[in-house]
Amino acid sequence: MNEFLDKCRSAVGDSYVLTEDTDMAGYLTDWRRRFTGKALAVVKPRNTEQVAAIVRLCNEYRVPVVPQGGNTGLVLGSVPDNSGKAIVMSLTRLNRIRAVDTVNNTLTAEAGCILEQVQNAAADAGRLFPLSLAAEGSCTIGGNLSSNAGGTAVLRYGNSRELCLGLEVVTAQGQVWDGLRGLRKDNTGYDLRDLFIGAEGTLGIITAAVLKLFPQPQAQLTALAAMRSPEDALRLLSLAQEKCGATLTGFELMSDFCLQLVAKHFPQMRLPFPQRYPQYVLLELSDNESEEHANATLEALITDALEQDMIQDAAVAASIAQSKALWALREHIPLAQAEEGKNIKHDVSVPISRIGDFIRETDILLQQGFSGCRMVTFGHLGDGNLHYNVSPPEQSSPDAFIAHQEAINRVVHDSVHRFGGSISAEHGLGALKRNEIRRYKTEVELGMMRALKQALDPLDLMNPGKVV
Amino acid sequence: MNEFLDKCRSAVGDSYVLTEDTDMAGYLTDWRRRFTGKALAVVKPRNTEQVAAIVRLCNEYRVPVVPQGGNTGLVLGSVPDNSGKAIVMSLTRLNRIRAVDTVNNTLTAEAGCILEQVQNAAADAGRLFPLSLAAEGSCTIGGNLSSNAGGTAVLRYGNSRELCLGLEVVTAQGQVWDGLRGLRKDNTGYDLRDLFIGAEGTLGIITAAVLKLFPQPQAQLTALAAMRSPEDALRLLSLAQEKCGATLTGFELMSDFCLQLVAKHFPQMRLPFPQRYPQYVLLELSDNESEEHANATLEALITDALEQDMIQDAAVAASIAQSKALWALREHIPLAQAEEGKNIKHDVSVPISRIGDFIRETDILLQQGFSGCRMVTFGHLGDGNLHYNVSPPEQSSPDAFIAHQEAINRVVHDSVHRFGGSISAEHGLGALKRNEIRRYKTEVELGMMRALKQALDPLDLMNPGKVV
Repeated sequence: MNEFLDKCRSAVGDSYVLTEDTDMAGYLTDWRRRFTGKALAVVKPRNTEQVAAIVRLCNEYRVPVVPQGGNTGLVLGSVPDNSGKAIVMSLTRLNRIRAVDTVNNTLTAEAGCILEQVQNAAADAGRLFPLSLAAEGSCTIGGNLSSNAGGTAVLRYGNSRELCLGLEVVTAQGQVWDGLRGLRKDNTGYDLRDLFIGAEGTLGIITAAVLKLFPQPQAQLTALAAMRSPEDALRLLSLAQEKCGATLTGFELMSDFCLQLVAKHFPQMRLPFPQRYPQYVLLELSDNESEEHANATLEALITDALEQDMIQDAAVAASIAQSKALWALREHIPLAQAEEGKNIKHDVSVPISRIGDFIRETDILLQQGFSGCRMVTFGHLGDGNLHYNVSPPEQSSPDAFIAHQEAINRVVHDSVHRFGGSISAEHGLGALKRNEIRRYKTEVELGMMRALKQALDPLDLMNPGKVV
Repeated sequence: MNEFLDKCRSAVGDSYVLTEDTDMAGYLTDWRRRFTGKALAVVKPRNTEQVAAIVRLCNEYRVPVVPQGGNTGLVLGSVPDNSGKAIVMSLTRLNRIRAVDTVNNTLTAEAGCILEQVQNAAADAGRLFPLSLAAEGSCTIGGNLSSNAGGTAVLRYGNSRELCLGLEVVTAQGQVWDGLRGLRKDNTGYDLRDLFIGAEGTLGIITAAVLKLFPQPQAQLTALAAMRSPEDALRLLSLAQEKCGATLTGFELMSDFCLQLVAKHFPQMRLPFPQRYPQYVLLELSDNESEEHANATLEALITDALEQDMIQDAAVAASIAQSKALWALREHIPLAQAEEGKNIKHDVSVPISRIGDFIRETDILLQQGFSGCRMVTFGHLGDGNLHYNVSPPEQSSPDAFIAHQEAINRVVHDSVHRFGGSISAEHGLGALKRNEIRRYKTEVELGMMRALKQALDPLDLMNPGKVV
């Protein structure tokens, strides 16, 4: 392998082939620090041609490649296994914004651009790039596309897939596919773009993308509504979609227990209501017209919802600071849950109409099996996506509870499957859920996935052990 | 083959295996009546299991299958070649709406449902299914998805691809893939859905789909604006997107010559302006709030556009009848062009920002090569999609001109390619453009397309001779 590494050094420069343990450490452990793999080397090309050259060397020497962006994934998709045979290909040096076109409303970014850098480049051009998620200061757009990242604006703008018009990809054979088209319509053959999006680097390496931009809204308004049940939250969702159309850009559900945890661990954060309610929805409107119009729309919605007894109370943020405070409640839920101790997380989706039944039925099943466990249920209700997390019973041993993780996953995922849902709504499969998915997909579907992998990566060099 | 046909009869019933020339005729000629193929039989299954059974027979006897919906395609994608070896599989008996879910905002339709039937089922449930195109009274949703149909509402709602959440597909091996998921988020493996969408029946047969529904708008307003140039039309587009956001649902460009042709052949149709202008844009707003609000938005937009000298005049439809009259101008362009005589059509897209340059440069090249030819340029400007059609010079022989079709296509398509565009924006490749596309796609891309075809349809039985 010395020959291989020497050739890698010739291709990208000595200082961009890391082989010392201390240099590689940051690339080998996953974001949640649950797993550390081994690698032959970490290779850091600076442009597409260098990526292609390295992949060709990997073909020649049969070395597996683990593509990596910000390494913020949650399913062990961007770290190598512990065989030590693979290289990690870090894309972070491919970090140029290649073009911004405000008439076509597109931005062309290299894979290693940080999401925040893309958001800022769009804003500098007076446009919005709407993808937004917790890791936006560290994750890369290549990773977002490879995992088809979701986030908080999917309700209005779609997942990463819907925000991408074209790709540049280095194939498993080390060829460059220039599919960087900035077209809204192109029906000239198979949809290669959407095959690479969400493939988690197992079919090729995304090196650049043409992304969609949108006008900046004139006003953004946030409100918190309180209601009795997830069903009432769904009624509010239907009403809001009818009244506000595409102006509705956020619709996040949070149970009372979620906000109790936030209040317990972050006592400076306050709910804007004098009493507690079973459920809350954080609503966001983005208006292209004016702040005044956004206010009128939101007031009318809340009045209607109160009259129809869908909601019990509501508070509209009167300033950007208040709006941030409402969003902070939502964003502090995972932090508060972590403060509370170890817990078991799920990233699931079901058809929106079945969310109420799913929560009720699954809660019962978990209580039957794991009496006293505490549900931390919140998520992107407008997308049918719940972070359906389970904390141990109070005064119990967290480690004893966590030992039941597989059994708890089984209850939750079996329930998701019965409701026609997905066991990975926005995080992907990676190595973590690769075996689990085989339980839920048919042999027909798994067979087609394997056939596609075999067709595009016959040597199984691209991120092996992930997805399929 | 008698044995094969007997088994087909057993599978679907004697009266649904057509072998007489008179019975088959309607299935063998394409929509524009340019080509008539031959078939061993036309087979008309009534459900997914029958489709699968027939495909398994086709595997056993190595009989190619040409899937067909409403047979309204424009690129010879749904008719057989003239070998007489294939069967046509007509999906029109799979015509049930299986489910409508107004909370999840989804509708599950079988492939043979007519688009209009889907639109009506959505409307009956108080929802909008926004796909709309000229053939909507005859085309099927299976065909729409297989060709990723576009139409007039792409600007707001996307192509057919963006309107579909899940599919049921009979694979090339005659297995049923149940991917009928009604989920907004599902990141559990390769995007098989989008691979079958737009594959024109060459990878498998779509038998049902879960489609997205939207709230019905409260008001729709139409206006016609007149301007000097395509560039001014683009300035208006940017302004309209900024001011109206997702309320803007239609933005159609028409040149003066297009409307001259309409006036000549349909003299009862009138332009709402006292004088002529070089270009016109048909604008449509769909408002979730009220007619009053839509009017105010549109008036403000027009006032701004006049002040900024983007447009020279504008007329807002004051009634549904007036709105229909404005849309009729647009819809009569292809009819007027047909009345004028034979012509050469192109369905192209370029990045929106390059449309002005594309039209100017390509017009010059065509005049250089084919002096006096008359450009009938119109289309979905908001999507960068032009129907860039060429009529013969006045007083010339249409047939002599049409003889130059290949040379004219070459000029137009080469120009499209130079501008980073697509030679088939919304119609697909079929058999018509299958060779032409090889000129414009790289060997890397064509190689991946062939590998996918080989992976999913190794016997080359699914709609052979189309796409790849």
